[in-house]
Amino acid sequence: MSFYEKLKFDADGLIPAIIQEHKSGRVLMMAWMNRESLEKSIATGKTHFWSRSRKAFWMKGQESGHTQNIRDISFDCDGDTLLIQVDQAGAACHEGYQSCFFRSVEPDGGCRVTEPQLKTPEQIYGKK
Amino acid sequence: MSFYEKLKFDADGLIPAIIQEHKSGRVLMMAWMNRESLEKSIATGKTHFWSRSRKAFWMKGQESGHTQNIRDISFDCDGDTLLIQVDQAGAACHEGYQSCFFRSVEPDGGCRVTEPQLKTPEQIYGKK
Repeated sequence: MSFYEKLKFDADGLIPAIIQEHKSGRVLMMAWMNRESLEKSIATGKTHFWSRSRKAFWMKGQESGHTQNIRDISFDCDGDTLLIQVDQAGAACHEGYQSCFFRSVEPDGGCRVTEPQLKTPEQIYGKK
Repeated sequence: MSFYEKLKFDADGLIPAIIQEHKSGRVLMMAWMNRESLEKSIATGKTHFWSRSRKAFWMKGQESGHTQNIRDISFDCDGDTLLIQVDQAGAACHEGYQSCFFRSVEPDGGCRVTEPQLKTPEQIYGKK
């Protein structure tokens, strides 16, 4: 029985994929996959997603070089969320942080940045 | 400036919340919050979600006693996903596993269970 039969894609054919750094356990990002991007991810060993805003496939690191090599793919009890362990090259966040979750909520209702910015977006993507 | 202003709830007023065990780094589950369930979570220190199928609030552990005490709430660069660090009482998964992500994909396209079942659902919820 293929594991695909245990997955539930939503009405738009999408499933959220949580990306976790294998060596550190740091949750790096969350993005969306459809069946084809999941198949591409498995076939290539690198994460591929579906952009809901651009309605296009994208491989993580395609522009930045900050690719994700897949170590493990798991899915939850309801089959409606993926958890993917990766080896992350460079910063996962397009803003230059290791993780997209670089801000935490403060008791006063504000927020604070919790990790250093490794690069600026200009350093990653060049001046636009 | 309130961090709520940085969050983007979807067309249904929802935002996905990834729940990670603080002490182990294990990703336990993913569930959905609306603004009110996030406010309840912050006010009580325990995770509250919105059930899309039942259209109702639920506090994690309400029936099972397997509550989640919140240690930290972070959000991603796009403001459309939450990552919440918790101290988990008992098993996070309603099927009795520590994490809902207890199955991984195998190279042959099948899947394997990767962690022990701590309790059966009957032991958690009683015979129905």
